[in-house]
Amino acid sequence: MSLLVECVPNFSEGRDLARVAALEAAISSVPGSHVLHRTSDADHNRSVITFAGEAEAVLESAVRVAARASELIDLNQHRGVHPRLGALDVLPFVPLGATTMADCVALAHRAGERIWRELHIPVYYYQAAALQPERILLEKVRQGEFEGLRKSVLIDETKCPDLGGPGLHPTAGAVIVGARPILIAYNINLQTTDLQIAKTIARSIRASSGGLPCVKALGLALESRGLVQVSMNLTDFSVTPPHVVFAEVSRLAADAGVEVAESELIGLTPRRAVEIGFAHALKMPDFRYDQVIENCLDSASSTK
Amino acid sequence: MSLLVECVPNFSEGRDLARVAALEAAISSVPGSHVLHRTSDADHNRSVITFAGEAEAVLESAVRVAARASELIDLNQHRGVHPRLGALDVLPFVPLGATTMADCVALAHRAGERIWRELHIPVYYYQAAALQPERILLEKVRQGEFEGLRKSVLIDETKCPDLGGPGLHPTAGAVIVGARPILIAYNINLQTTDLQIAKTIARSIRASSGGLPCVKALGLALESRGLVQVSMNLTDFSVTPPHVVFAEVSRLAADAGVEVAESELIGLTPRRAVEIGFAHALKMPDFRYDQVIENCLDSASSTK
Repeated sequence: MSLLVECVPNFSEGRDLARVAALEAAISSVPGSHVLHRTSDADHNRSVITFAGEAEAVLESAVRVAARASELIDLNQHRGVHPRLGALDVLPFVPLGATTMADCVALAHRAGERIWRELHIPVYYYQAAALQPERILLEKVRQGEFEGLRKSVLIDETKCPDLGGPGLHPTAGAVIVGARPILIAYNINLQTTDLQIAKTIARSIRASSGGLPCVKALGLALESRGLVQVSMNLTDFSVTPPHVVFAEVSRLAADAGVEVAESELIGLTPRRAVEIGFAHALKMPDFRYDQVIENCLDSASSTK
Repeated sequence: MSLLVECVPNFSEGRDLARVAALEAAISSVPGSHVLHRTSDADHNRSVITFAGEAEAVLESAVRVAARASELIDLNQHRGVHPRLGALDVLPFVPLGATTMADCVALAHRAGERIWRELHIPVYYYQAAALQPERILLEKVRQGEFEGLRKSVLIDETKCPDLGGPGLHPTAGAVIVGARPILIAYNINLQTTDLQIAKTIARSIRASSGGLPCVKALGLALESRGLVQVSMNLTDFSVTPPHVVFAEVSRLAADAGVEVAESELIGLTPRRAVEIGFAHALKMPDFRYDQVIENCLDSASSTK
């Protein structure tokens, strides 16, 4: 039985592209693991690699790349605008096809056990793989980041890793391993250098402050580009898709007298988010999935 | 490497639906060729079948259905208001997905060669597959139709088929084989009963009066709905895609003090038009085809 799984590790390196290539090579060294996408951001100093394949191949790649990241990245030397706790910072397993969330939780726990046992890097479990309800949210787990948590784990039991520790790894920190539904990482850049505007908009739209459901948002400065960014994770696009976020951020930016410069997907999007965004933009209330030729063809070939 | 191709054969039979079903069966007899759509018109006495699949399967279906059409249809008995030259009258190959026009031209030429060699039906090539500049336009190739051309080919060298002949097939005529971009039938409805506004906008945007390239447009009244419609064919969406037409019609309607009520696709659209419309609406200059997870997985599995 085939268990298709996506894995989207986030690494604390976004400037030295030779190192990022080495991480990618560690993933691809396992037959059956396919790297689908990679983005590196110099301001975040962070890279996100999306890969997929059979569960066992994906697990092996995840452990190999955790090892490679701890060889290549020293968090004591790392600076970037994005919060982080580990060299390999976040390691989510995402069900594809007929794979269930329970399959991905089991895979996340096996990955965590190998990372602690073989690499001596402590592990926190988050979202569907969380062992403690207060660790469901990634932001909560990461609070304090590497510099704060490496001290607090030693004096506050409630901060201890789920596996290993209590001290963090001296250079690789800890890995936050999880299982979650497909997530859309989506950024909107604003034509201003006023960071406060991005922060205010982020606060208005994020779910945790009563904004749009299933939206996490941060305001960041993109100093090298002279822009600010509303950097978002859409945790359930069937509730709040990218085009709804774009419209709302555009409206709030216009209220602040600022233009949207552009938006960008970090990594991948499911096709459905593209289709519903298109239909909305062109005012097509009657648009149907099977009006796309290739969709027709896919269902024709999968039913024969 | 996967080469997706659509094929839209036009047959000189639109009344005897058992015969049309036999044509459809000839297409579907090739594994991997999928019939997506069919229309038959009794006045035209003509049927159009849309099918698609991998290039090699589509080629095989095209040759099989050319053979079946020549068995079933005798042009000497055929009457209808639509001009025609062959039992299988027109055979265009249309690129889908990452397939190029050059791929479809090559496929059209291979289809033509097999139709002449195996079925002894002469072939003309049109549009992107034309071998002579005066044969680019289908209407020009078909001028004189079966009854006129079967005489003129014998006395006028400039009328000779590109392959085979010089005489036409006594009952099946000739097949006009080509390659062309996909056509999108797209309508925009305006919140007014003033037909003149739709007609004026149609005139402004249609290519033939200096508007948007590759756009044909008419203004129509939708009396039962109390709306007017700009009804369009987009003959090359890579030049003028639906979202560009939507923006231009919206602008012209606003100038006339009228709102766009909605828009609609008639039939099918290629996925690429959806993707570029989405990227435009969300101001994503860097959006790439391979950021859609299903596109990625399709290419990963087809190359391994």
